[in-house]
Amino acid sequence: MMNIILLSGGSGKRLWPLSNDVRSKQFIKMFRGSDNELESMLTRVFRQIRTVDPEARITIATSRKQASTIKNQLGEQVNICVEPERRDTFPAICLAAAYLHDELGVSEEEVVVVCPVDPYVQDSYFEALKRLAELARQGESNLTLMGIEPTYPSEKYGYIIPVTADPVSTVSAFKEKPDEKTAREYIAQGALWNGGVFAFKLGYMLKRAHEMIRFKDYPDLFAVYGAQKKISFDYAVAEREKQIQVLRYNGEWLDLGSWNTFTEAMDSDTIGKVTLDNHCKNTQVVNELNIPILCMGCRDMVVAASVDGILVSGKDRSAHIKPYVEALEQQAMYAEKSWGSFTVLDVQEDSMTIKVELLPGHRLSYHSHSHRDEVWTVMAGQGCVVIDGMKRIVRSGDVITMPAGCRHTVIADTRLGLIEVQLGTEISVEDKQKFEDVD
Amino acid sequence: MMNIILLSGGSGKRLWPLSNDVRSKQFIKMFRGSDNELESMLTRVFRQIRTVDPEARITIATSRKQASTIKNQLGEQVNICVEPERRDTFPAICLAAAYLHDELGVSEEEVVVVCPVDPYVQDSYFEALKRLAELARQGESNLTLMGIEPTYPSEKYGYIIPVTADPVSTVSAFKEKPDEKTAREYIAQGALWNGGVFAFKLGYMLKRAHEMIRFKDYPDLFAVYGAQKKISFDYAVAEREKQIQVLRYNGEWLDLGSWNTFTEAMDSDTIGKVTLDNHCKNTQVVNELNIPILCMGCRDMVVAASVDGILVSGKDRSAHIKPYVEALEQQAMYAEKSWGSFTVLDVQEDSMTIKVELLPGHRLSYHSHSHRDEVWTVMAGQGCVVIDGMKRIVRSGDVITMPAGCRHTVIADTRLGLIEVQLGTEISVEDKQKFEDVD
Repeated sequence: MMNIILLSGGSGKRLWPLSNDVRSKQFIKMFRGSDNELESMLTRVFRQIRTVDPEARITIATSRKQASTIKNQLGEQVNICVEPERRDTFPAICLAAAYLHDELGVSEEEVVVVCPVDPYVQDSYFEALKRLAELARQGESNLTLMGIEPTYPSEKYGYIIPVTADPVSTVSAFKEKPDEKTAREYIAQGALWNGGVFAFKLGYMLKRAHEMIRFKDYPDLFAVYGAQKKISFDYAVAEREKQIQVLRYNGEWLDLGSWNTFTEAMDSDTIGKVTLDNHCKNTQVVNELNIPILCMGCRDMVVAASVDGILVSGKDRSAHIKPYVEALEQQAMYAEKSWGSFTVLDVQEDSMTIKVELLPGHRLSYHSHSHRDEVWTVMAGQGCVVIDGMKRIVRSGDVITMPAGCRHTVIADTRLGLIEVQLGTEISVEDKQKFEDVD
Repeated sequence: MMNIILLSGGSGKRLWPLSNDVRSKQFIKMFRGSDNELESMLTRVFRQIRTVDPEARITIATSRKQASTIKNQLGEQVNICVEPERRDTFPAICLAAAYLHDELGVSEEEVVVVCPVDPYVQDSYFEALKRLAELARQGESNLTLMGIEPTYPSEKYGYIIPVTADPVSTVSAFKEKPDEKTAREYIAQGALWNGGVFAFKLGYMLKRAHEMIRFKDYPDLFAVYGAQKKISFDYAVAEREKQIQVLRYNGEWLDLGSWNTFTEAMDSDTIGKVTLDNHCKNTQVVNELNIPILCMGCRDMVVAASVDGILVSGKDRSAHIKPYVEALEQQAMYAEKSWGSFTVLDVQEDSMTIKVELLPGHRLSYHSHSHRDEVWTVMAGQGCVVIDGMKRIVRSGDVITMPAGCRHTVIADTRLGLIEVQLGTEISVEDKQKFEDVD
């Protein structure tokens, strides 16, 4: 059985407006799955791992913010190791290793493969992960890396220089992201891209962790996590390790980090309500809004629309999006939560209208607001509300009014949709007092 | 004093999504006015007429659909002559002429100038209108036209061939829209564009009207209007008239009929929440949505977004928009009404959420629905509702529930905003029974 740690991070700025702080690119559902349903990179990778190894024990190392979305998309099929704060890959892998050992009971002799959650690859990539795990199990090296056969002299990746051109070779050196000329020289020497994939025995990793961080076990490391410095696994471990080998991988591998590469992986040019005239060329459009997009005479462009905003970009420019999105600095207008999702529909000076959708069996926290009144109109579904301790069954058409200070929650029996109108001059996400859940 | 009839028509498809069946292009507020407020073509033309002639008596000939918007933008400052149905320019001008005579008491000797509502011109154009009226008053001809000095051999306009090249000349012939080669020949002969502007004495026009339509007075013509055939003023009158002269106009004149010409008239490249990176060139963006638009590397493009949809078009293609918009065939998501406006916020299978904004002193009709319940949450303002004959004062935060069959209305004292949630499986605009207004 293979243990896999999938690293799930990402600020989500580079695929704006489909990604945001809460919804990173790996959660966007835009790939056509085997049953023709749209799947996200997360669910696609999960499905692919299960295809090559139905028994694989999968743990996702991630932040608090992403944990809800991962649960929504994969439920109980994976373990989630939540970092209290973001601290780069070395602390994250240490925490996940301790989690596997202390929480899941994985022995120090077992092999663990670490892999990013978002490669866009064919199943052969996961077959290569199995081979990687096999090499680690044989134990000729402490660390086994996957090296990706480069297709062009990229400046975006680190390079691994192998000693030989064999399918498996020991590593002679690591190189930081080079300029294009240097990258060309590396490739001439047989260098490989470092795709951030490596396998080791759990005991090896725990030893490295204890060398650099003072902790006893998983709960202890969790407690001191925030005090650790940010440091990458490559820098802290890989570049210092002498007994290290690399497995060449030459299958298709796309790093969907920006719109111009992301659109290459789309099965059709459009998703959602989109019309392209016959003068459009090499243009992809993703529309999550309810209103139509009409594109005429667009060439080499990407258009993406969500409740957060609209991007219209030439593909050659789309990799430079980050500073522009940072400048927008806006509140997310849509977010998936552990209990469902919310969408901001309308913002006025003294009011805000929000659509709330709760999953069956889920609830909001029991809470109140100091500076705003709220009105719920149940659109669909059934459940119950608790208002200042009083329980009431609700269904489509029912209206609940909650003056400021009033404690309230809603619990969904079926999928439940409601429109919330917030009324007040100081509407803010900070204005929320939580109380212990009521039954 | 000058009498002016402004013809306000247009299907509104060519400037989609900012224009729609209800909101034609002349109502879109996107020109910077003298006080830096955004103005529409309608309010701009109105302001310009008032500048050259503060006393001008202005009548707008238009359809039922547009009358509310005109009232919202200009209030009581203009007379509105509403056509019961659309019947092309000859019947429309006959109806307006009868309206001037019978409703406003304009004498048969007074001069009337007819002009489209949407030319994008400088004030000198309106000075030329005054000169046109003066020529008509002198009475050397029955009909005096404005001929626009052509700037290129356009295939979009009809041509007027004058006898001489003098500033004022008698007309020798009219020519239908030609092909480019023929247009070139016309221009070589000194031909002018026919911009649909003409002046006459009211009695002359009434005589032409009575010759072709059997009617007594304005109310009578209004009653038989729907039975008239569609025929243009050029065809019915101008091309048959012998005593006709033309005034040359060589000032700036833009026909903002499609996005590529419309954007030429914009004072700045962007309106609304828009970011352009410094690789954008010759690109204009109009954003009426509340979410940001980010454009990167766009060249010679126009981007326009409203609650009806999003257009992303190369300027060279934007004139071909009409069939694509017709294919979209959607319900308007935003509409200005005599009482205010509505915006569709959310559409679900069994519910619909709408924002309703009422102007002070205005009300909805008293009505009921057979197949849906409704809930109103007042967001802002004050007024009263009438529910099955019972009156109730309401203000921000109040909630009104209206089961199917219940008669209801809301009357705004101040500007009043409310969120309406419609609940039912058969939500349709047709499901509405109106009753006599209650006090």
